[in-house]
Amino acid sequence: MKRIAVFTSGGDAPGMNAAIRAVVRTATYHGIEVYGIMRGYSGMIKGEFVKLDSASVSNTVQKGGTILKSARSQKFMTKEGRKEAFDQLVNHGIEGLVAIGGNGTFTGAMIFEEEFGIPTVGAPGTIDNDLFGTDYTIGYDTAVNTALEAVDKIRDTADSHDRCFFIEVMGRDSGYIAIPCAIGGGAEIVMVPETQMSEEAVIETLQNGWKRSKTSFIVIVAEGEKEGNAHHVAASVKAAIPQLDTRVTIIGHIQRGGSPTAADRLLGSQIGIAAVEGLMNGMRNVMAGIVDRKLVYTPFSDTIYKKKPINQSFMRMVEILSV
Amino acid sequence: MKRIAVFTSGGDAPGMNAAIRAVVRTATYHGIEVYGIMRGYSGMIKGEFVKLDSASVSNTVQKGGTILKSARSQKFMTKEGRKEAFDQLVNHGIEGLVAIGGNGTFTGAMIFEEEFGIPTVGAPGTIDNDLFGTDYTIGYDTAVNTALEAVDKIRDTADSHDRCFFIEVMGRDSGYIAIPCAIGGGAEIVMVPETQMSEEAVIETLQNGWKRSKTSFIVIVAEGEKEGNAHHVAASVKAAIPQLDTRVTIIGHIQRGGSPTAADRLLGSQIGIAAVEGLMNGMRNVMAGIVDRKLVYTPFSDTIYKKKPINQSFMRMVEILSV
Amino acid sequence: MKRIAVFTSGGDAPGMNAAIRAVVRTATYHGIEVYGIMRGYSGMIKGEFVKLDSASVSNTVQKGGTILKSARSQKFMTKEGRKEAFDQLVNHGIEGLVAIGGNGTFTGAMIFEEEFGIPTVGAPGTIDNDLFGTDYTIGYDTAVNTALEAVDKIRDTADSHDRCFFIEVMGRDSGYIAIPCAIGGGAEIVMVPETQMSEEAVIETLQNGWKRSKTSFIVIVAEGEKEGNAHHVAASVKAAIPQLDTRVTIIGHIQRGGSPTAADRLLGSQIGIAAVEGLMNGMRNVMAGIVDRKLVYTPFSDTIYKKKPINQSFMRMVEILSV
Amino acid sequence: MKRIAVFTSGGDAPGMNAAIRAVVRTATYHGIEVYGIMRGYSGMIKGEFVKLDSASVSNTVQKGGTILKSARSQKFMTKEGRKEAFDQLVNHGIEGLVAIGGNGTFTGAMIFEEEFGIPTVGAPGTIDNDLFGTDYTIGYDTAVNTALEAVDKIRDTADSHDRCFFIEVMGRDSGYIAIPCAIGGGAEIVMVPETQMSEEAVIETLQNGWKRSKTSFIVIVAEGEKEGNAHHVAASVKAAIPQLDTRVTIIGHIQRGGSPTAADRLLGSQIGIAAVEGLMNGMRNVMAGIVDRKLVYTPFSDTIYKKKPINQSFMRMVEILSV
Repeated sequence: MKRIAVFTSGGDAPGMNAAIRAVVRTATYHGIEVYGIMRGYSGMIKGEFVKLDSASVSNTVQKGGTILKSARSQKFMTKEGRKEAFDQLVNHGIEGLVAIGGNGTFTGAMIFEEEFGIPTVGAPGTIDNDLFGTDYTIGYDTAVNTALEAVDKIRDTADSHDRCFFIEVMGRDSGYIAIPCAIGGGAEIVMVPETQMSEEAVIETLQNGWKRSKTSFIVIVAEGEKEGNAHHVAASVKAAIPQLDTRVTIIGHIQRGGSPTAADRLLGSQIGIAAVEGLMNGMRNVMAGIVDRKLVYTPFSDTIYKKKPINQSFMRMVEILSV
Repeated sequence: MKRIAVFTSGGDAPGMNAAIRAVVRTATYHGIEVYGIMRGYSGMIKGEFVKLDSASVSNTVQKGGTILKSARSQKFMTKEGRKEAFDQLVNHGIEGLVAIGGNGTFTGAMIFEEEFGIPTVGAPGTIDNDLFGTDYTIGYDTAVNTALEAVDKIRDTADSHDRCFFIEVMGRDSGYIAIPCAIGGGAEIVMVPETQMSEEAVIETLQNGWKRSKTSFIVIVAEGEKEGNAHHVAASVKAAIPQLDTRVTIIGHIQRGGSPTAADRLLGSQIGIAAVEGLMNGMRNVMAGIVDRKLVYTPFSDTIYKKKPINQSFMRMVEILSV
Repeated sequence: MKRIAVFTSGGDAPGMNAAIRAVVRTATYHGIEVYGIMRGYSGMIKGEFVKLDSASVSNTVQKGGTILKSARSQKFMTKEGRKEAFDQLVNHGIEGLVAIGGNGTFTGAMIFEEEFGIPTVGAPGTIDNDLFGTDYTIGYDTAVNTALEAVDKIRDTADSHDRCFFIEVMGRDSGYIAIPCAIGGGAEIVMVPETQMSEEAVIETLQNGWKRSKTSFIVIVAEGEKEGNAHHVAASVKAAIPQLDTRVTIIGHIQRGGSPTAADRLLGSQIGIAAVEGLMNGMRNVMAGIVDRKLVYTPFSDTIYKKKPINQSFMRMVEILSV
Repeated sequence: MKRIAVFTSGGDAPGMNAAIRAVVRTATYHGIEVYGIMRGYSGMIKGEFVKLDSASVSNTVQKGGTILKSARSQKFMTKEGRKEAFDQLVNHGIEGLVAIGGNGTFTGAMIFEEEFGIPTVGAPGTIDNDLFGTDYTIGYDTAVNTALEAVDKIRDTADSHDRCFFIEVMGRDSGYIAIPCAIGGGAEIVMVPETQMSEEAVIETLQNGWKRSKTSFIVIVAEGEKEGNAHHVAASVKAAIPQLDTRVTIIGHIQRGGSPTAADRLLGSQIGIAAVEGLMNGMRNVMAGIVDRKLVYTPFSDTIYKKKPINQSFMRMVEILSV
């Protein structure tokens, strides 16, 4: 293998730059040339290739976002688009790809490989932590800490005013972000897609707290299908318990940014190295991940179709700790 | 003066605890007893008084919120309620008050003094910085830094995805929080009540940027009358420039919490000392503030009715710096 | 089991309060009374017992340090002292202990149990992460992130001035803190007790970098036996490469403080619950830990005498990433 | 004026990039070309000039350090060196300079102007805040907040262990950084060059506290002439009060780095604009500063020879607040 390329695709996540840096330096270390492709599959089609060397990634490990930018590409969903992308890779002499992203990214890579035979090793880059084949995804730890800092700040004002705050955190259809925010943020209730706690149950819990003369509450709400979920819950609660002084905060896109935590820099670095060395060892259509502290390569077909269940003991923890 | 009381009222603000601590220790230093009244005027009426000494405020200077809690009191708006409050003060032997809050708080204190003769010195505690008689209010610097950190994080993801973010910050009917966020956050546009920039002008500026192949934008929107202002602007922009990938973030209540900055701890401490020493010197119906680095006492009538204009040169700065 | 007690001992670590809170609430959840013992074994001897309930630990999960304080006790190292401690426990009706600390703490507990039969379950609370029986100790993740933020700040000034910084981090006789700081902080070199890199090798690496016209460097030095190690290395380097503009920073005790990260709050909570439920299930002389995301109880004899090796692949990562 | 250049010199300070950005964009706004000179006077002599435009300074306002780097130049202290620098400026067609730095920088600029007639406007960039002609210097607010966060973390562990910490902060021969750290950090004692508090007085204060059964203390020590001052004080205290468990932390170079606070970004921006517009208006040998919220240009001769006194009331505040 003489030359590879790396790109980021899908939602950006803190630690992606640590992974890019690791890809570049590992390739360099092994005498392989490396290109960066700007804006994911979109840039692959348009030929936005940039030669990268060790100095290109200096002073990037601590930066949020992705220096290679990210974009969604409608065109890559067509055979014609993928053909153009392949031609670009051939023209640039690229023999292997490292794709940093989530399941959408890996699905594209898998189809692409079937059609054109270009090997790809994936790196799990998403704040949502919803990928099978790795305990944690790159960006998850940072997103949780960012959300938790916001919860800490809100508790200051919730306590001062005896209010009930509904705080919506990201995480698509999983409670991976919501649950540590609830446990670590001292929340009374956490609403996640996995358990589908009813609004009635939320109301009952708050009423019980109110009777025990508890006056300030924090309810963490996973955004679920779409942003704004917390507003619905808050409205129902307010209708049922009018004396409660309710407020809603949607933490939103700040969860995607910021300097990555130590854990995300370390994970991004481990995975970036593993992705390049995987390609060198002839791997393709697999995602590099860390499971129980060991490096594991999981077929894209598994990362895409298998579901990583949430630790059920965490749900019990919220119940015990809000006693 | 043998015994005074201190309370916080209105929206909480980081640095209020630094002010409370300074009130308690200054009183102690001068041999005056001091009580804390919980939940502002509401607790004054209900008799929620707590004796405070030097140790009571240990390890509080770095805490957000207010250890004395805050609340709104409908009852204090009635003569009857104020009579009950006065009786409580008399029963506890309170000869003077330090009121930490904003104009609503000071208006109450002024009426109360007219009716019952209890002297109050005010301390400007609000994140909004909209009080005449002080260059900065306690909590303002922290709120600006919190909002700015959020803007920094959002820029990471805005840049990665070539998006246009509308970020709504607090500040009621002033642009005090919005403007430093725009200048310090590298925003292209800032919309504040003081200038009433039209949506047409916003659209034009963004279109011009787009033509110069600028692809990511940040627009800071002061919340103005009510939360959610940014959604309206974003919708209008999206309708006019459909190719723009727009997103909205309402920073919200996190701006009220968090550990106070050095400036807010220092200001809270200065004002807390000045409030007690003002009472000792026979002052009443005045707010302690810092103007041009000097301690100034301003009559409540001025803090309430006079408007502190925003520095016009700041508006020009946004224009120059977004060149 | 009707009544238990919890205490912290040895060096404090962020997340200890999360563990204390979890102990208190889990006991309460199961109908067990719980006392806090102030200042570890010292307070146990002196009878500094405080009854704790759910409200006692409200608003503590986000706090650094330990609300139960910590101290070293010479007296507990004597049979006589332990007898006094035992008498205090009997007088307070304590039937089991949760000891949050490190190996010194567990050694004491083990001897104490042999002599007086009081069961103890341990919780690994130390920033050093040097305990066998758990992947991570409570406080480690926070300490690493604190140290890494310091490294980030220093790189700003190292780059601006083309300097070589020797940054000393904590971690006693292991490189657990140093290594992620090196990988995540973009350091050129990491010196840890596990590898005993010679000063000659450090000098050679820096000289090679200098020849490649690299001008700013970061060397992470694990403190090892005693604080100040970095000064020695820096002096040797300066003697060998006089043209290098060297500086030393000892990050020091800030690594012990600060609000715990999400990971430490979660870990502290998990372990606190597990410790109480371990006691309820008749366990004694074991430490609760998380290994490969599963709860594990390890005999004190193993936590004390077995060594947790550092992941060797991390050393290779530093080499690859500083290419 | 057709073309100017900007450089940073002396110790770096957070907010310097905000100033550079403002210089570049203000020049651009007014149709003036602008060059950056790398490494201060050293780069001026060597001809390290880089053309800058609006895009060059995108995404720099939030960064610590200085993108133009800084260095000390022995050669510029010679007439010969300054002649070479002048020739470089002439060759590049530079008609005016913006010098961001401290008194060493301005002294050089003043001599240079006398000899060669190149006008310079200065911008006060130093964390030390020791410049006459501006209330605050660029970088000061960030340094204070960084130091204060360190003090907050140390208090966590000081309280947990009942220890007495001596914390050394930067600030050369002034207490500008030390004093807000003491007031905002809840320190018992602050030692600054301005008051020359004796070690005997420190010992006495600590002994008095100890007698009142106070067990943890924080003493803030301004570094003064050279780093390590705190070690001497701590040793003297330990000798006099052996029962005190003393520790020393030198906060060190982390105070120079990090993302600038809102105040420093705003100040850097204001000053950067003012410097360019000052040059345009024919000014030379002056420093742009903000005094009492108003823009002021002060002759270099005053900034260099006049001393900005510290606010004496702050010293009294420390005494009152540590009651």
